[in-house]
Amino acid sequence: MESTALLIGFVAMSVGSLGIYATGSKSSAIRHHTQIHALVPFIAATAYLAMYLGTFVMDRGDGVTLYVPRYADWIFTTPLLLSGLVALALHEHPRQGGYIVAIVGLNALMILTGLLSAMSLDGSTRLIWFLWSCVAFAGVYYMIWGPLRERSASYGGALHEVYRKNAGQLSVVWLIYPVVFALGPEGLGTISAAASVWAILVLDVIAKVAYGFTAGERLKKAEPELMSREARRLA
Amino acid sequence: MESTALLIGFVAMSVGSLGIYATGSKSSAIRHHTQIHALVPFIAATAYLAMYLGTFVMDRGDGVTLYVPRYADWIFTTPLLLSGLVALALHEHPRQGGYIVAIVGLNALMILTGLLSAMSLDGSTRLIWFLWSCVAFAGVYYMIWGPLRERSASYGGALHEVYRKNAGQLSVVWLIYPVVFALGPEGLGTISAAASVWAILVLDVIAKVAYGFTAGERLKKAEPELMSREARRLA
Amino acid sequence: MESTALLIGFVAMSVGSLGIYATGSKSSAIRHHTQIHALVPFIAATAYLAMYLGTFVMDRGDGVTLYVPRYADWIFTTPLLLSGLVALALHEHPRQGGYIVAIVGLNALMILTGLLSAMSLDGSTRLIWFLWSCVAFAGVYYMIWGPLRERSASYGGALHEVYRKNAGQLSVVWLIYPVVFALGPEGLGTISAAASVWAILVLDVIAKVAYGFTAGERLKKAEPELMSREARRLA
Repeated sequence: MESTALLIGFVAMSVGSLGIYATGSKSSAIRHHTQIHALVPFIAATAYLAMYLGTFVMDRGDGVTLYVPRYADWIFTTPLLLSGLVALALHEHPRQGGYIVAIVGLNALMILTGLLSAMSLDGSTRLIWFLWSCVAFAGVYYMIWGPLRERSASYGGALHEVYRKNAGQLSVVWLIYPVVFALGPEGLGTISAAASVWAILVLDVIAKVAYGFTAGERLKKAEPELMSREARRLA
Repeated sequence: MESTALLIGFVAMSVGSLGIYATGSKSSAIRHHTQIHALVPFIAATAYLAMYLGTFVMDRGDGVTLYVPRYADWIFTTPLLLSGLVALALHEHPRQGGYIVAIVGLNALMILTGLLSAMSLDGSTRLIWFLWSCVAFAGVYYMIWGPLRERSASYGGALHEVYRKNAGQLSVVWLIYPVVFALGPEGLGTISAAASVWAILVLDVIAKVAYGFTAGERLKKAEPELMSREARRLA
Repeated sequence: MESTALLIGFVAMSVGSLGIYATGSKSSAIRHHTQIHALVPFIAATAYLAMYLGTFVMDRGDGVTLYVPRYADWIFTTPLLLSGLVALALHEHPRQGGYIVAIVGLNALMILTGLLSAMSLDGSTRLIWFLWSCVAFAGVYYMIWGPLRERSASYGGALHEVYRKNAGQLSVVWLIYPVVFALGPEGLGTISAAASVWAILVLDVIAKVAYGFTAGERLKKAEPELMSREARRLA
């Protein structure tokens, strides 16, 4: 059962990566988004292959299976998606370093403490790490909907529309992950291991493949504005 | 005893992170420094929480306790502090990549080989790793007080003053860490495990929280110069 | 036998690092390349010291020795070399983020799945990871000889010559690594452990020290063109 889901994940991510690269814009104003959106499912494909082969899939000590490649996938793919979002929020303004460092740092802490929570055999330690992970997660959402949304709104135009839609899509999908995690076998154990694997497969395909295609399409529509911004900056 | 120090560390770092963000400048010329200085103690808070909960706190095999979260903290927070320092030395000149890569690389080697030294059960291996770690550390100081100081001095002005003060503050505090390490239980064992934990707590609060506040204040005072530099670059 | 090779590696890399820094150009248009090319063998020296001391050198379970520091070296040094190559391909054009993220991501997957292949006790799992590693490797070569070569060719001039020569040198040397890996004890076992260590030592010296010197010399010859590009960008 789980094994079928993991193989489907590998194929969907591999094909998604090629598809996003093949159909994505290669124009100078958008290609970095295409490159990032294609790399994300390629990393995820590698993680699904590892989970399918059983590499770094381990029993945490009480019969619950830990899929460590998942966390390795997330620790690299989520910063990539967030970097694209920051570049978009600042309408490709070149000085993005501080925002990217801050949001990527909070995001990394969220994922690493999520892994610590999943690894904990003691219930209260598991809860403390889950709550601290949620604090870092709240910091990520604060950045997306606070300072970054403000910057994007101050520039306005079609790009702000794209930012709001991309940020909204990611925010909604990402919010379901900790719920599945909390209900799954690593947390409360309300849903079965198989149900958890299938649920995360669906979320991963939405957050990585579907997002890559729709975000790419939205950027293509805003291409004239992106081009004129670039021309103005180089002038 | 140690447990109290670790809990104090968690609280001091959490409050420090919020305080640095709340009081730091959000102006376009400084906000990346504020974002970085606030992230640093947030990472340290997570490491102190881990050490308090006993996560990745282990016996290295001869009764000496290894606090692995410390090294995980340092490997991420010191590059952030150094990146801020490089940006300042170059007076926010956009092409900083080479300097940051070189100093962050040397710094990472210093911390990783420090961890290898702490993990070594054999005395001579421990000494070799400590010495090689000092070589990398010397490389970091060479960068700070050689090429970077020269670049900053060549631009001159109020920002060079800020660079000299920030670099001086960090250089002095950082120099005490390897001494505590060498005297502590991972090294010669001259001072007790509890004394070492308290000493590093004091150093961490100075190097992360106090530094974040004072460096932020210094940058605020140099804000007019930073603004005019930014305006000149965009003109 | 192996131990002599590892000590030679440590010395060659340390001396190479100092030599590349001492003889490399410190001009504003080239120094980031000098800084990167000097850091690469310093990291490799640390890895050779670790292998010489036996740190993280382990039996994978069937008598085959795993040199983990090698992979730790590669995961940091190859992105540095590729970043320099990307900067060169884009003739130091400031917007390189997308290319660097994509090629460094593919490269990291290549090395990590290579390590997974080396760690696998099961022959078919080892083969699958080796093949997937080759897929990522093909992606790296596609980037170097496809989009990046096109960008460099579109700018033309002396820098395009340097790009073609540096990319060619790296591409040929890097291609021999997977062959040695496949024939060595972690793979088919056609060549002995000692032969594999010596072969990789020779490759490492060519790919890191010799490359650092010759790439630096080529860049020096193209310095007038680099300077005029920089002047034009700042004008």
